[in-house]
Amino acid sequence: MSYRSPVNDIRFILDHVVPLAPVAETEMFAEATPDMVEAILTEGGRLCDEVIAPTNRDGDLTPTKLENGVVRSAPGFKEALQALAEGGWVGIAADPEYGGMGLPQAINVGFNDMLSGANLSLQLNPLLTQGQIEALEHHASDELKALYLPKLISGEWSGTMNLTEPQAGSDVGALRTKAEPNGDGTYAITGQKIFITWGDSDVVSNVCHLVLARLPDAAPGTKGISLFMVPKFIPDENGNPGVANSLKVVSLEHKLGIHGSPTCVMSYEGATGWMVGGEHKGMAAMFTMMNNARLNVGAQGIGVAEAAYQKALEYAKDRVQFTPIVEHADVRRMLAEMKAEIFAARAIALACGVAIDMGRATGKESWQARAALLTPIAKAYGTDMGIRVTNTGVQVHGGMGYIEETGAAQFARDVRITAIYEGTNGIQAMDLVGRKMMDDGAAACRLLQEVEDEAQAARSEFPVLAEDVWQAAEAMREHTEWMIGQGMQDRFAGAVPYLDAFARVLGGYYHLRAAMAEGRNSARGHLAAVYIRRLMPIYAASLAEAKEGAEGLYALSVEDLEA
Amino acid sequence: MSYRSPVNDIRFILDHVVPLAPVAETEMFAEATPDMVEAILTEGGRLCDEVIAPTNRDGDLTPTKLENGVVRSAPGFKEALQALAEGGWVGIAADPEYGGMGLPQAINVGFNDMLSGANLSLQLNPLLTQGQIEALEHHASDELKALYLPKLISGEWSGTMNLTEPQAGSDVGALRTKAEPNGDGTYAITGQKIFITWGDSDVVSNVCHLVLARLPDAAPGTKGISLFMVPKFIPDENGNPGVANSLKVVSLEHKLGIHGSPTCVMSYEGATGWMVGGEHKGMAAMFTMMNNARLNVGAQGIGVAEAAYQKALEYAKDRVQFTPIVEHADVRRMLAEMKAEIFAARAIALACGVAIDMGRATGKESWQARAALLTPIAKAYGTDMGIRVTNTGVQVHGGMGYIEETGAAQFARDVRITAIYEGTNGIQAMDLVGRKMMDDGAAACRLLQEVEDEAQAARSEFPVLAEDVWQAAEAMREHTEWMIGQGMQDRFAGAVPYLDAFARVLGGYYHLRAAMAEGRNSARGHLAAVYIRRLMPIYAASLAEAKEGAEGLYALSVEDLEA
Repeated sequence: MSYRSPVNDIRFILDHVVPLAPVAETEMFAEATPDMVEAILTEGGRLCDEVIAPTNRDGDLTPTKLENGVVRSAPGFKEALQALAEGGWVGIAADPEYGGMGLPQAINVGFNDMLSGANLSLQLNPLLTQGQIEALEHHASDELKALYLPKLISGEWSGTMNLTEPQAGSDVGALRTKAEPNGDGTYAITGQKIFITWGDSDVVSNVCHLVLARLPDAAPGTKGISLFMVPKFIPDENGNPGVANSLKVVSLEHKLGIHGSPTCVMSYEGATGWMVGGEHKGMAAMFTMMNNARLNVGAQGIGVAEAAYQKALEYAKDRVQFTPIVEHADVRRMLAEMKAEIFAARAIALACGVAIDMGRATGKESWQARAALLTPIAKAYGTDMGIRVTNTGVQVHGGMGYIEETGAAQFARDVRITAIYEGTNGIQAMDLVGRKMMDDGAAACRLLQEVEDEAQAARSEFPVLAEDVWQAAEAMREHTEWMIGQGMQDRFAGAVPYLDAFARVLGGYYHLRAAMAEGRNSARGHLAAVYIRRLMPIYAASLAEAKEGAEGLYALSVEDLEA
Repeated sequence: MSYRSPVNDIRFILDHVVPLAPVAETEMFAEATPDMVEAILTEGGRLCDEVIAPTNRDGDLTPTKLENGVVRSAPGFKEALQALAEGGWVGIAADPEYGGMGLPQAINVGFNDMLSGANLSLQLNPLLTQGQIEALEHHASDELKALYLPKLISGEWSGTMNLTEPQAGSDVGALRTKAEPNGDGTYAITGQKIFITWGDSDVVSNVCHLVLARLPDAAPGTKGISLFMVPKFIPDENGNPGVANSLKVVSLEHKLGIHGSPTCVMSYEGATGWMVGGEHKGMAAMFTMMNNARLNVGAQGIGVAEAAYQKALEYAKDRVQFTPIVEHADVRRMLAEMKAEIFAARAIALACGVAIDMGRATGKESWQARAALLTPIAKAYGTDMGIRVTNTGVQVHGGMGYIEETGAAQFARDVRITAIYEGTNGIQAMDLVGRKMMDDGAAACRLLQEVEDEAQAARSEFPVLAEDVWQAAEAMREHTEWMIGQGMQDRFAGAVPYLDAFARVLGGYYHLRAAMAEGRNSARGHLAAVYIRRLMPIYAASLAEAKEGAEGLYALSVEDLEA
């Protein structure tokens, strides 16, 4: 059995659940006609299925290696990444002025979903490059853009993001890497960075590092951080890789999963860098990169879950214990719930993509606020769901799931990182209840109002499911209004369950829309019932947990926790 | 930081939550006085902390190997297992007539919990031996008992259980291994078995296999299965290991975790075996072994969760991001919930142990029924909780959790198998709603009545928590009564969530008892509030899922699942 990209589901969602049509009606994305979208997704799906997916096990079994200071990629990765680059897939959403396809982010999210299911380790390479492209488009000088963007968009070069240092993880402001002016407009970058994904490889001719560092006069904390482009090879006068820069890969991490993706400790020793985005404005530029990446990390969770689901279903059809185990009620339950959760998370991620596109194309603040609201939800729910679904995938396989050769365990190992990087899911949830509620919950309540209105409209055809969704949205709205009155500590204590509840309500809503599109006795109608009746109700427990606030947690002292 | 066995929690539970006192009042367990229990657990804890735990990482990093047909154990394992054997720990609960300590199963469960936290791979060795001891005590001839029990109880020899074959997993009745009479009272055993834990090793002088096989005239299915003792070396006239039997280890599995525990493919080629428990009565004997093992697999999940919790707490105290992250609300929430879940599962497992002991010592059917009811709950909740808590342990570590050297990921990899072996958690749940409800829910309702009565009594001191627990028990009772009227397919479809709900209600109950014992402003009172207010409420969502039954699942055809 082999991986089959979920082209149909993505197309169905963009046609009926979170319509792409309004995006295609804007001037910016006029090319994204239904025919174009179909052609792009179909072609992308074929590439994922036929070229990328066959490399996935090799990446796990033959991890990347550091040899004489150069990272050797896993077998087949170089050819697969070249095929991706040649198809123009790195630059799907990039500016056509520099060679990009200029397509909506929603399409890119769908493609990243498919690509992650095919090979998560490999997908990380173009994903980081895409984030860098977006950061440069928004914040780099015209000179840097002209030099770097065409090479990044074509996939000739790849990009990385360098934030973390041993003492500076979630607290980025604690970073110590220095940037000293060389007097010629460039800077000398010195410091150590850790957890640098695809920090080096033998698949591209240059690796472009975006590095956060401090100028000599910088204020402490995040206000004193600037961003620098630090290429592995300094481009010569023709824009080709020239002399080697003063940087190196010190070591590779030995990780639970994504063995095909090199996670590097990087050392910069007076490396030459070019500033991106102005003095002390590094965080703003980095956030551009991270916001893009966060949504697409959500897509990673969904893609890997899809691959795990397909594998579990195939096993359940083949494995006979009395009957094929797909006929056993508990196995049927696991599979149906896996499928229902994947659909919910996929719809949320695509809704976020559509909101980003509408925000860009129309400049309307309401769309931008929706995109901002949905980004942490798409990231955290997509990846938490990915962990749950891949774990269930192992369970469906029984004892075989624990044997590495089966491949079910690889999905669970690989996807585990997605809940941690690009801001842990705890950070996502705090972003949701903090920064994303600075409008006193206006954007959240507008979205919940939409859910209630649509649920209202669905009552005649789906009386039970529509009522459930309406009630859930109403509870979510009441909770949100209550939460706005609480202090930040209490909000943070309930942030993770609040985000979970919000995602489940949205998941129920998008399932209801799918059911409405296909009718009462359709497969999508049945799947909606699985989600709304069996998985959505957890929102109430999550809200109960969120409502408890911080007091009860701190009532237990650290000594109590140790006892 | 190093592992510290949870001696205090186990003692507290046996003193105040699921009292061991009535067990110690029986003639059979009169030796289990509070002083004795304290001495045993303290000494056992010291052994786990000082001798066993230091071998845990080595087992992961240096997996067992098959060399020239012999399994080489991981570094330090032989010495650690010898220390265990010399301390008499293998035979804690075994018959004193053959050298056992004859202590209550509850103590053994507590010890297995501590030992699993120290090193799960290693603990599997005595665990399987303990199960075999119990099966032999109940079903073997006096001759076999005299020959094997002293060696197994002393830990000189180890035991295995051989059920699974490639085509026969959950459907044990599909097994094909043959047993042909040799005419001298012995049998020739021929067949292949898979997933045989500690199927061989270099730490003991003999390995005793209990093998399920079919006599030539056997009926198909489980009714035609007999059980045989098939030693690696046939004991000579002095009871010492003599000539090698016709069996071998074909290969070892490459697994997600428990790398220190060899999982063997075994081949029996006319190996000499001795029948245990009568013709075609193999399943009954094997169930004795499995019931013991199931509860202690629950203890495995709890022990590994404990170790993961301790490691995460230590990291959260040391890791500074702004402040030590243990002060961050979301990290505090994760840690408090980990601790609360571990306590709940531990109390359930010990309650099951006490019920087993009371059933044995008093012969009362009500205790035996309670033990039977609690066994699948203790197994499935203990192991599902173990998966959740070790996963959260990785999350608390952030990026470091994904790096194998940290050790947090090992706990998550190791514990994953516990939800699968000794009957998957789906099988446990079906056992609960099927076989364990053949009394029309009488045993379940008696236990829930106890919960309600105790909650009633706790109302004045803990009005909110007591009310929550009472309501939950009442909902559980109503659901149970409703379920008894449903067909088996509907019960099975809701079995897993039903078991989860039952466990959460019991977890709330035992937390309430702990709170009552220590008072309103105690740490245990605060921890009870964390569980009852934040984690127990999921029972309602689980019951909602359980109530949906099978229809909605089968409304989705296999083709729909593939679409």
